[in-house]
Amino acid sequence: MKNISILGVTGSIGTQALDVIRDAENEVRLVGVTAHRNFEKLVDIIEEFKPKYIGVTDSDCFGKVKEYCEKANMNCELYSGEEALEKIATLEEVDTVLTSVVGIAGLKPTIKAIRAKKNIALANKETLVVAGDIVMSEAKENGVEILPVDSEHGAIFQCLQGNESKDVNKIILTASGGPFRGRKRDELKTITPSQALKHPKWNMGRKISIDSSTLVNKGLEVIEAHFLFGVDYENIEVIVHPQSIVHSMVEYVDNSIIAQLGSTDMRLPIQYALCYPERNRAVAHSLSFKEASTLTFEEPDMDTFRCLKLAYEAGKMGGNMPAIYNGANEIAVELFLDEKISYLQIEEIIESSMKEFEFVEKPTLDQVLDIDRRVREYVLKKYVK
Amino acid sequence: MKNISILGVTGSIGTQALDVIRDAENEVRLVGVTAHRNFEKLVDIIEEFKPKYIGVTDSDCFGKVKEYCEKANMNCELYSGEEALEKIATLEEVDTVLTSVVGIAGLKPTIKAIRAKKNIALANKETLVVAGDIVMSEAKENGVEILPVDSEHGAIFQCLQGNESKDVNKIILTASGGPFRGRKRDELKTITPSQALKHPKWNMGRKISIDSSTLVNKGLEVIEAHFLFGVDYENIEVIVHPQSIVHSMVEYVDNSIIAQLGSTDMRLPIQYALCYPERNRAVAHSLSFKEASTLTFEEPDMDTFRCLKLAYEAGKMGGNMPAIYNGANEIAVELFLDEKISYLQIEEIIESSMKEFEFVEKPTLDQVLDIDRRVREYVLKKYVK
Repeated sequence: MKNISILGVTGSIGTQALDVIRDAENEVRLVGVTAHRNFEKLVDIIEEFKPKYIGVTDSDCFGKVKEYCEKANMNCELYSGEEALEKIATLEEVDTVLTSVVGIAGLKPTIKAIRAKKNIALANKETLVVAGDIVMSEAKENGVEILPVDSEHGAIFQCLQGNESKDVNKIILTASGGPFRGRKRDELKTITPSQALKHPKWNMGRKISIDSSTLVNKGLEVIEAHFLFGVDYENIEVIVHPQSIVHSMVEYVDNSIIAQLGSTDMRLPIQYALCYPERNRAVAHSLSFKEASTLTFEEPDMDTFRCLKLAYEAGKMGGNMPAIYNGANEIAVELFLDEKISYLQIEEIIESSMKEFEFVEKPTLDQVLDIDRRVREYVLKKYVK
Repeated sequence: MKNISILGVTGSIGTQALDVIRDAENEVRLVGVTAHRNFEKLVDIIEEFKPKYIGVTDSDCFGKVKEYCEKANMNCELYSGEEALEKIATLEEVDTVLTSVVGIAGLKPTIKAIRAKKNIALANKETLVVAGDIVMSEAKENGVEILPVDSEHGAIFQCLQGNESKDVNKIILTASGGPFRGRKRDELKTITPSQALKHPKWNMGRKISIDSSTLVNKGLEVIEAHFLFGVDYENIEVIVHPQSIVHSMVEYVDNSIIAQLGSTDMRLPIQYALCYPERNRAVAHSLSFKEASTLTFEEPDMDTFRCLKLAYEAGKMGGNMPAIYNGANEIAVELFLDEKISYLQIEEIIESSMKEFEFVEKPTLDQVLDIDRRVREYVLKKYVK
């Protein structure tokens, strides 16, 4: 029996992880959860799974949850505020922490969890993008596994099983291409949030949907893959595969390619990460080659979707540059969703931020958090009057 | 350094294995070879690789090779006749024997090699089809590895690395569909040997090219996969994939599929088998997704290509039935290549042979060799006046 806690349990990944846990009741037990302010969903989860430890970061929501738990006579411990995340990330009886909070908020609790020697099922991209060197060396030092939860890195992780990392030629990250694949720059000018939120293949949260449309998501994945698998940027290739059936591939030195395929169901990589090194019985459907009868591959158009090119640049520079790229994008996506900026301004904001701030080669965790804050301030000041 | 001997060195697989060895001179050394009667090619190989042990099964050819080796003052030991195969298969200093002789002739030397505790790089399908139970239990008993050399089983073998066989849902064997994919039965009636020898994707020997066109080759592979990987026939699926880029796949219990892809170059699986568990630097080209931009999958038409359906039937019956299937096919292909029978008579011969002979559930090696001989006699008597 493996004890799990989930940071961000009411989000898209968190909810799908619950499906996996529901189906693996003899293998996995949910011990701790955190949520921000989705009271109704959290109460449903508490009723069903009865986690022993509950963290709520929003103070209004915390009050309501506390009242509910007292009335219902729940046998649980409650934590509030920012401390809640760290508490649930470091519970003594937990083996694996699923970090599915969105954005840079996931970084600190992930590091706390690593230091508490918890294996990490990592659904929070920003953690590695912003502080990859720090996180990976902490993981190594503490002897914990970083198990990727998104479909691409989960695929690569599976493709690496039974192989040696010295034999990797390159990583081939597949990308659906997002809802605007094939469009030219002129056609991107007038994109609205609701258009950008409609992803053709995956049902995901709002921020990641926008990131998928701009290919920022793929850019973050390139940087994440670099840290997670220790592969140079020259050897990480992005290939557009609109059907999203091949979730990613690894080419070895003998030019043999190992690929992982499956239905477009996030529960598949979540399950692999939570049950690793075991494979549990399926929650996702079996892939039908009647439906997946044609798979296509094409090069990404980095002249139209320049955010992907910028991600490679930020990654290759290293240091604090991926943090700047990520911070600028996070605030830009917020502004775009609030209709404060246009679609192409997301890219403009990333690029100008990368030019604006001084390069630091080996930033500390505090410097990384500081640059993230300063980038947001700069963007708000420049773009929101 | 791994010492290798090759049975059938002048054939298609043997020649391509030499390419691999040429490129792996620090990892692999060619110690022994056998050939049948291709004197010119064998002499070229002797000059280049200077193997210490040489077996020649054809007596005329043996005489010429002996004369050549004496004149050239070669430091080698020569063996003739059927005994030559067994000798080269059991050389003390050899680690791995590549069995690439065609047809049932490969069976006995393979078993001798296993008993001499040599790992087997198996390119001879008939060995497992005809005597799968015997061969696999001998391998287990002697603690040797059976390393598949053809592209499909080599792919499956790679897809199984780092996984447990209890977690396999099914094996998905890909098939190019052969040169007559899409045709109906009426269109197969007048097929000539030269039409059937033109395989669209792979450059192979004559017998296997005919087998590919009838899907007998895929049928033999289904039976081979059953023995090699211990998977029930219900869980071995054939899927037609005309581009021959995905060389086969494994679906696991969680419905995750692992696939192996690569250029259509037999040197890739040969290299993997010879260098296993290491991966050596590439002899095959890197797969370009610009060229492999569209991959398609369709169900095999087992009503038109009935030999595949017959293979499943023979496999499920087990016992001596796969040997009957194989023996009937071998002699039928010979007759077809000699223009003694029509194309569709290959299937008719297999089917009538499967009906003609009594079923033996647990045949001995001698019984298997005997049924093979009797099937051939029966076919010759019935079809060649």
